Amino acid sequence: MAQERVVYMNGEIIPESEARLPIRDRGFVYGDAVFDTTRTFGHRIFKLDDHLDRFFLSLKYIRLESPLTKQQFRDITMDVLEANLKLIDAGDDYWVTQRVTRGVPTGDEPPQPSTIVECTPLPFQQRAKYYRDGMPVVVPSVRRTPPEAVSPRAKMHQYINLMLADQEVKSQNPDAWPIVLDMNGNLCEGPGSNIFIVKDGAVVTPREQYVLAGISRETAIELAHELNIEVREVDIDLYDAYTADEAFVTSTSFCICPVASFNGNPMTNPSVPGPVTDRLMKAYSGLVGIDIAGQYLSRLIV
Amino acid sequence: MAQERVVYMNGEIIPESEARLPIRDRGFVYGDAVFDTTRTFGHRIFKLDDHLDRFFLSLKYIRLESPLTKQQFRDITMDVLEANLKLIDAGDDYWVTQRVTRGVPTGDEPPQPSTIVECTPLPFQQRAKYYRDGMPVVVPSVRRTPPEAVSPRAKMHQYINLMLADQEVKSQNPDAWPIVLDMNGNLCEGPGSNIFIVKDGAVVTPREQYVLAGISRETAIELAHELNIEVREVDIDLYDAYTADEAFVTSTSFCICPVASFNGNPMTNPSVPGPVTDRLMKAYSGLVGIDIAGQYLSRLIV
Amino acid sequence: MAQERVVYMNGEIIPESEARLPIRDRGFVYGDAVFDTTRTFGHRIFKLDDHLDRFFLSLKYIRLESPLTKQQFRDITMDVLEANLKLIDAGDDYWVTQRVTRGVPTGDEPPQPSTIVECTPLPFQQRAKYYRDGMPVVVPSVRRTPPEAVSPRAKMHQYINLMLADQEVKSQNPDAWPIVLDMNGNLCEGPGSNIFIVKDGAVVTPREQYVLAGISRETAIELAHELNIEVREVDIDLYDAYTADEAFVTSTSFCICPVASFNGNPMTNPSVPGPVTDRLMKAYSGLVGIDIAGQYLSRLIV
Amino acid sequence: MAQERVVYMNGEIIPESEARLPIRDRGFVYGDAVFDTTRTFGHRIFKLDDHLDRFFLSLKYIRLESPLTKQQFRDITMDVLEANLKLIDAGDDYWVTQRVTRGVPTGDEPPQPSTIVECTPLPFQQRAKYYRDGMPVVVPSVRRTPPEAVSPRAKMHQYINLMLADQEVKSQNPDAWPIVLDMNGNLCEGPGSNIFIVKDGAVVTPREQYVLAGISRETAIELAHELNIEVREVDIDLYDAYTADEAFVTSTSFCICPVASFNGNPMTNPSVPGPVTDRLMKAYSGLVGIDIAGQYLSRLIV
Amino acid sequence: MAQERVVYMNGEIIPESEARLPIRDRGFVYGDAVFDTTRTFGHRIFKLDDHLDRFFLSLKYIRLESPLTKQQFRDITMDVLEANLKLIDAGDDYWVTQRVTRGVPTGDEPPQPSTIVECTPLPFQQRAKYYRDGMPVVVPSVRRTPPEAVSPRAKMHQYINLMLADQEVKSQNPDAWPIVLDMNGNLCEGPGSNIFIVKDGAVVTPREQYVLAGISRETAIELAHELNIEVREVDIDLYDAYTADEAFVTSTSFCICPVASFNGNPMTNPSVPGPVTDRLMKAYSGLVGIDIAGQYLSRLIV
Amino acid sequence: MAQERVVYMNGEIIPESEARLPIRDRGFVYGDAVFDTTRTFGHRIFKLDDHLDRFFLSLKYIRLESPLTKQQFRDITMDVLEANLKLIDAGDDYWVTQRVTRGVPTGDEPPQPSTIVECTPLPFQQRAKYYRDGMPVVVPSVRRTPPEAVSPRAKMHQYINLMLADQEVKSQNPDAWPIVLDMNGNLCEGPGSNIFIVKDGAVVTPREQYVLAGISRETAIELAHELNIEVREVDIDLYDAYTADEAFVTSTSFCICPVASFNGNPMTNPSVPGPVTDRLMKAYSGLVGIDIAGQYLSRLIV
Repeated sequence: MAQERVVYMNGEIIPESEARLPIRDRGFVYGDAVFDTTRTFGHRIFKLDDHLDRFFLSLKYIRLESPLTKQQFRDITMDVLEANLKLIDAGDDYWVTQRVTRGVPTGDEPPQPSTIVECTPLPFQQRAKYYRDGMPVVVPSVRRTPPEAVSPRAKMHQYINLMLADQEVKSQNPDAWPIVLDMNGNLCEGPGSNIFIVKDGAVVTPREQYVLAGISRETAIELAHELNIEVREVDIDLYDAYTADEAFVTSTSFCICPVASFNGNPMTNPSVPGPVTDRLMKAYSGLVGIDIAGQYLSRLIV
Repeated sequence: MAQERVVYMNGEIIPESEARLPIRDRGFVYGDAVFDTTRTFGHRIFKLDDHLDRFFLSLKYIRLESPLTKQQFRDITMDVLEANLKLIDAGDDYWVTQRVTRGVPTGDEPPQPSTIVECTPLPFQQRAKYYRDGMPVVVPSVRRTPPEAVSPRAKMHQYINLMLADQEVKSQNPDAWPIVLDMNGNLCEGPGSNIFIVKDGAVVTPREQYVLAGISRETAIELAHELNIEVREVDIDLYDAYTADEAFVTSTSFCICPVASFNGNPMTNPSVPGPVTDRLMKAYSGLVGIDIAGQYLSRLIV
Repeated sequence: MAQERVVYMNGEIIPESEARLPIRDRGFVYGDAVFDTTRTFGHRIFKLDDHLDRFFLSLKYIRLESPLTKQQFRDITMDVLEANLKLIDAGDDYWVTQRVTRGVPTGDEPPQPSTIVECTPLPFQQRAKYYRDGMPVVVPSVRRTPPEAVSPRAKMHQYINLMLADQEVKSQNPDAWPIVLDMNGNLCEGPGSNIFIVKDGAVVTPREQYVLAGISRETAIELAHELNIEVREVDIDLYDAYTADEAFVTSTSFCICPVASFNGNPMTNPSVPGPVTDRLMKAYSGLVGIDIAGQYLSRLIV
Repeated sequence: MAQERVVYMNGEIIPESEARLPIRDRGFVYGDAVFDTTRTFGHRIFKLDDHLDRFFLSLKYIRLESPLTKQQFRDITMDVLEANLKLIDAGDDYWVTQRVTRGVPTGDEPPQPSTIVECTPLPFQQRAKYYRDGMPVVVPSVRRTPPEAVSPRAKMHQYINLMLADQEVKSQNPDAWPIVLDMNGNLCEGPGSNIFIVKDGAVVTPREQYVLAGISRETAIELAHELNIEVREVDIDLYDAYTADEAFVTSTSFCICPVASFNGNPMTNPSVPGPVTDRLMKAYSGLVGIDIAGQYLSRLIV
Repeated sequence: MAQERVVYMNGEIIPESEARLPIRDRGFVYGDAVFDTTRTFGHRIFKLDDHLDRFFLSLKYIRLESPLTKQQFRDITMDVLEANLKLIDAGDDYWVTQRVTRGVPTGDEPPQPSTIVECTPLPFQQRAKYYRDGMPVVVPSVRRTPPEAVSPRAKMHQYINLMLADQEVKSQNPDAWPIVLDMNGNLCEGPGSNIFIVKDGAVVTPREQYVLAGISRETAIELAHELNIEVREVDIDLYDAYTADEAFVTSTSFCICPVASFNGNPMTNPSVPGPVTDRLMKAYSGLVGIDIAGQYLSRLIV
Repeated sequence: MAQERVVYMNGEIIPESEARLPIRDRGFVYGDAVFDTTRTFGHRIFKLDDHLDRFFLSLKYIRLESPLTKQQFRDITMDVLEANLKLIDAGDDYWVTQRVTRGVPTGDEPPQPSTIVECTPLPFQQRAKYYRDGMPVVVPSVRRTPPEAVSPRAKMHQYINLMLADQEVKSQNPDAWPIVLDMNGNLCEGPGSNIFIVKDGAVVTPREQYVLAGISRETAIELAHELNIEVREVDIDLYDAYTADEAFVTSTSFCICPVASFNGNPMTNPSVPGPVTDRLMKAYSGLVGIDIAGQYLSRLIV
C-alpha cells in the first residue's frame, strides 16, 4: 500500500507491517537491544551524528557488536527517512530511530544481531496542552534504576522502571509528567526527558551521571551559553524544585517544554513559559528553523 | 516440517519459525512483557499452577491485563507441550513458558496484548559440568536492581541487569555462575536462580523480598522441612558464603545444583555435592521421579 | 459559654479558647513537645494506660521530664473527658490527647515544661467515604525521616515530614491517603496510621523499628491472633502492595479502615472491605463495643 | 511595663508577655510554621532583605501562604526593632525574627495563618568563651534529616533533630558545639550554624544542598573572595576536619567563630583564631562596623 | 627471668620479650593476620573449642592457611597457659590468644605464615569502676565498617575503625565505652564487645550479621534461655536504647557488665545492675564458677 | 653480610634481618601504624617532601604523635637510601618507606611509638607485562571502606579491604588488577593506585574524598595541565569505564600504566598505551628522567 511507512530491517527496506521479529529474539525475551532516536524539524533530520555516537556507546556498554558501521546507519537512516517523508504533511515531522537487537540464540554460536531503522510521526496533538498550560510534573515514589545495577545512560529496551513511574503518576492525574528521583533523592529524569529549573536567572540541571544526557539537554545548555545564561549541573532536590522561578523539560520531541508545577506546587513565576524558558525556546526554534511551541499548539483541539 | 516445534500465539498453534512479533510491540521496544517458565520431568510438567499463579502476580505488578484466564493458559500449555513432546527423546525434557506482551500502541486505544506459550529443550549438555565439578560462583560488582526501582520479584522481559552481571563474571571465567548482591551488599540471586548455603547442618537462603522467590527454591525449602533440616531465611553476605560448609543453587532447570566455590574460595566441605545438598538432591529426584543430577551427567562430554 | 470544651493546662481546667501558649515556648518555636492521643468508643476511653506508657517513652527519648506522673495524667484525662463528654451526642466520640511542651527558656535556668490535656471530636463525616469506597492509598516521593535522624517512634510535635507527604498526594487527588516509604524503600506509615496487607489469608505489616507502633496496630495484631489469622511483621514493598489480596489502615480514629488501591492499582480482591479485613473490623467492633464502620457510615453525606 | 519588649502579632504591636498562641495552632501541634532571623550590629539590622527572601522560600516549600507581603514584613520589622532597641545598651544587639504559623484548623475552611515579628537579645555572655578558647566541635551520632524527608534548607519549627544532636554532645561536654553529618557521612551543619575548614590557605565548606545556606556563610564566602582567599564548596569528612589547619563556624549570632578541635583532635594550627580565620573575622567586623569577637569577649566572666 | 611470661611462636615456647616479628611480616605491614581470644576463670580456660572454631572461620575468610591444626592449637594453648599460670595470683586470670600472621613475602613463593599463642593478665583494676557505676555508653559518629567492605565477623588485625570510635568518645569522657552504629544506623558493637538492652523483661541484641557474634554474647543468650528470659535478635536503634529498662555489654573479659546510660541518657531502671542483668550475671558467675562482678570489684581503688 | 639492606629503626641503622617488632606492638596487633612510600628514579628520590607531608596528615588522623620531626625523617630517609643504593644495579630502583607504629601498651603509660625507614626493590619484572599488554582491570564485588568508618585517605596498616578485593579478582584471573567501587557504586581506587579514564581527549579521575589522592595521581594531573589536556575530577561509573577511549592507572611504582580493559570489555581505543596516555607517560618520563615504561619492559621475560 502506497500509504504505508517503510522500515529498514537486516539489509532490506520493507513495509512496516512486514517488519517482524522471531519470538526468541533476545531483544524481545530479555529486552536485550539498544536504540537511539532523533527527530526531524520541517523534514530535516537533527544532529544525526550525535545520536549515532551515543547509539554506539550504548552498544559498547552491553557488549553488543553492531553488524553495521556508523556510516552505514547514517546512509540507511537518510534513505528510510526520505522514503517515509512523502507520507506526511509539511507541518508534521518524524521520530527517526535506529535499533540493534542481540538476535536469536543458536546453540553454541553467538546470536546474529538484527538491525532496524524506522520512523514514527511525532505526537503533536496529544502533547499540545503542555505548551499551552505547562507540564504538571509529578514525582513518583519509584526511583530511577541506579548506575550500579543498570546505567541510565545507555538507551536500551528496558523501560519498565520509567513505565512504573508513569503509571504511578498518571493513575492520579492523567496529564501528569513523571520526573523520577535517583537513589540519593535528587531529581533525575523522566521518560526520555531531562529536567531543568531556573533560579535567579540561572539554568540548573542534574549532573550527567545519573541521567541519560539527552542531546536536547545538551542543545539547551549550548543555547544558554550563547545567550549568556548561567548553567549549573548540580544535584537538585524537591526544595530546589518547589522554590524555582521556572522549570522546563527537554526531550527529542519536546525540545523545550515549560513546567507549570511540581507535585501541584506551582512555579514561583506562573507565566507559561517563564521569561528565561521563553528565551531558550525561541533560540531553539531559531536553531531548528521551526517554531517548536507553535508546531505543537497548531494541533491543539479546543 | 514435521520436526519443528509449535508455539501458541494469539489464538493459534503455529510452527515456531512463524511466530513473529511486530517491531512496534512494546514487549520488544520497552521489554514491556511478562513471562513464567516451568519444566517437565520425564515429560511430565512440574507445578504448573504455582507458576501460573506467579505469572498473574507479575502481570498485576505492571498493570498488564491478560487476554486469557489462568485456566485458558493451563489448557493451552498442556496442548502445546503435548504437541512438542513427540519431538524429543525420552531422556530429554522441556522448559515450558507463558508470555503476555503489551502489544502495539494504536493511537488513543490501549494496545492489544499478545499471548504466547512455547517450549524449549533443557540445556543438559552445556550445564552437565556443574553437577560433576560444582558451580564456581562468582559475585560481580553489578548489583541487583532494587525493589524501589523495579521489583526483582516480577518476571519481566528486563534482563540487562542480570546479563551485565553474567558478562562481568564470564569475561574472567567462562564457567563462572553469577550471584549478584542486593543494594545492601547481601547475596541475592543469579539469572533465574536462587542461592542457598549450608552451615552447621542448617540450610540458609536470602529472604524473599530482594529475590524472586523461585518455585524450585520453595520446593527445596519444603523438602528440607520434610527431612528435618533447619531452614533460615536471612541476610547472607560474603563472610557467610566463604565460611559455609556447602552451598547450592536452585532453579527451574537446575532443581538443585552444588556450588564448588565463591569467588574461588572453595567450600569448607569439598564434596560435590556436600552431604546436606546430596540429601536434598535425592529428595528432589524422588519428588519429580527422575535422577536430576543423573539426567545432566548422562550428557557429559568427556 | 456553656458549649465550649475545656482543657487542662498547667494545673487548671479552663475553657479551650483561653488555653494559650507564650510565643517563646519551645514547643512552638522548635516543635519541642511530646503528645499521645487515644479516643473514646461510645464515650468510653480506650487503652489509656497503653497510650500513657508510650507517652512517657516519647518524653524519655527527647529527655523531657514530665511535671506530672502517669497517674496524674490518667486522673486529669478522665476529668477533662468527663467535662467534655456532655457537649457531644451519644453517637459522637472524642480524640483525647496529653501533651508536654518544654516551656520558655529563661536565661540559665532550665525551662519549666507546660502540660496540656484536651479533647477533639472525631471527624466521622469527613472520613466516612473511606469506609464506603475504601481508601485510595498513594505513596508519595517524600520518604519517612530515618531513625538515625529522628525516631519515627516518638510522638513529637514534628509533622512537616508527614505533612509534605500529605500535600504531595492530595495535590493530585484530594481523597488520597499517603503511606510513605522508609529510607530503604519499604512501606512505612501514614500520618498517625499504620498499613497492613492481606496475602493468602495472612496479615502482613512493617516491622516496628521504622514505624510508630500504633496501639490500634497492636490491637489489630492481637485480634488476628485470636481469630487464628497468621500475622507477619516484615519488610513490605510496592510489589507486595500491588499483588496483595486486601489491605487496610489502622489508626486511633480509623481503628481498621479498608484500602481500595495502591497508586491506583486496585486490590486483587475488590470487596470493600475484603473478607479478612471484614473479620478484623467485626472483631474490633466487638472489642470496643461499637460498630466502627457503622459509626463512620452513619455520617455519610450522600 | 516600660521595660518589656514588644512583639508584632497579627496586626498589632503588643507586649511580649501578651503574645500567645492558641494550643490548637498547627505551629505548636505540628511544628507547622516557618521563620527567619537576622541580627543587628550596633543596633543596625543586617541583610534584612536577604533574610526575607529566604523566609519566603521556606514558606513556598511548605505551601504556606503569607498574609503579609515582603514589604509589609520589612516595615513591621523596622517598627518592632525600633520600639525594642531603646531597651538595650549600646553594646548589646538583637536577634530579629519573622514567623508565620499555619494557624488553627477550622472545619472545612483552611486555617488562617498567624504572623509574628519579635526581637531577642544576643547571648554574648554565654558564648564569649568560644572566642577566647575556640569552639570544641563534637560530631554526634545523630545524622541530619535528609532532604528526601524534610529539606534542611527551609527554616521551619522542626528542631528535634538538631536538638537531639545537641543533647548528645552536651551530655559528654557541656561546652561542645555539635556539627552533624549528613546521611552520606559528610560534615553538614550545627544548630543554625555552618562549618568551614581552612586547608593550605583555602577555605572549604559543604555544598549548599545538604545544609541551610546561611547568610553569614554567604557573607564569609564573599569576604574570602574579596581577600583573594580561595573558596571551595565540596564534601568534607572527618579526615578533612582532623587534618585541617584551621576551622570556624558561621551563624547569624556568631558571624565567624574559631574552632579549637574536632572530637578533641586539635586544629593543626592551634592559634585562636588561626591566621586565615582572623583575616575573615576582621573583614567581617569591618563590614558590619563592629568588632565581632570584641563584642563577645567584653562580656566574658573571668 | 623466672617472672617472665612465655609465648609460643612458630614451634617454640620462648620468653615473651624474645617473641618478635620481622618488620616485613604482612601481619604488621597490612594487618594481614587473624586471632582469637578466650580467658580463664579461676585459672580454668573457657570454651576454648568454640574460640578455635571461630578462629578457623576467620582464617578461611581471608584465605590464610594455618600451619597448625585446631588440635595442635588446642594443645599448645594448654601448654602455654600452664606455663604462665604460675606467674599470677589465684585471684587473677588471663586472656589467652592464638594468632596466625601471613608472614614475609618472598619473591614468587607464597609467604610462610607465623603462629603465636600468648597470655595477658586481665585488666580487672582499670575496669572495676564499670561494675560499680555501670558503663557510660557513648555512640560515636564513626560507623562500623560494613560487611561489603570487610566483615566485622572475622577477627583480624584491623582495629583502626574501632580505635577511631574509642578515641572519639574518650576525647569527651575518658570513662565512656563506645558502641558504634552500623551503616544503617543501628547499634552494632564496641571494641571486642556486644550490646544488649532489656525491655519489658526481654533481652534484645543486634542480629549477628553486622556484629562479631561474641562467644560471651552466645553464652548470655543461652543463660537467658535457661532462665526463661525471652531473647530477641533484631535491629536496635537509639530510640530503643534511650527507652530501654536496662542494658549490658558482653565480652570475653567483661562477661556481662551493666550499662548506666546511653549518650548520658540514664537507663529507665537506674539500678546497677538492673534486675534482669543481675540474674544473668549471677547465672554467668555460676557457669564459670567465679563471681564475675566480685572479681572486678575486689580490685577497685577507692 | 655486605649484601643485606639496612633499615632505620628507633634511632639505629641496622641490617634488615635484625629489624623486628615485639609481638605486642599495636602496629601488629591492631594494624595501628601509619606509613608512606615514595620511590627513586635512576636512584634519585621523588617528591619526598610531598610524601612526608601526607605521612604527617595520616599520623594526625589517628592521633599518633611522631617521635621524629619531618626534617628528621627526611635526613634519615636519605641516609638509609644512600646506604642501600649501593646494593642495586643502575637500572634498578627502590620503594622508600617511612613508618610509625603506636608501640607496646605499658599499663597506665601511653605506649612509645616506634619509627622505621626502609627500602625495597621495585618489582619491575613481575609487572612488566602490564606495560606490554595493558592492565586487565577487574572490579570486584568488595567495596572500598567508606570514609565514615575509616578514611581511605590516611595510609595505615589496614589492607584487608583491598586485599580481599585483590583475592577476589585474582581468583578468576591471576593478571587482573582490582579497582574497587566506593559505597555509592563509583570507581574508586586499587591497592595503592588511582584510576583515570580518557574520554574525548579529556582525562577524568574520581574526586579526592573517596580515594587516597596519590602523589602520582597529582603528578599526572599536573602534567596534563602542562600538556593542555583537560582534567575533570568527577564520579566515574562502569558506563564511563566501558565507553572510555583509554584508561590508565597511576601509583608510586607504576607512575602511569595503560589499562587494556574493564571487566574484559576492551578500551574503545585498543592501542597500548592509547595516544593521550602515551603523551602523559612520555611527560612523566621526562619529569623523572627515566623512560618509565622502558624500565619495566627491559625486565620482561619472554
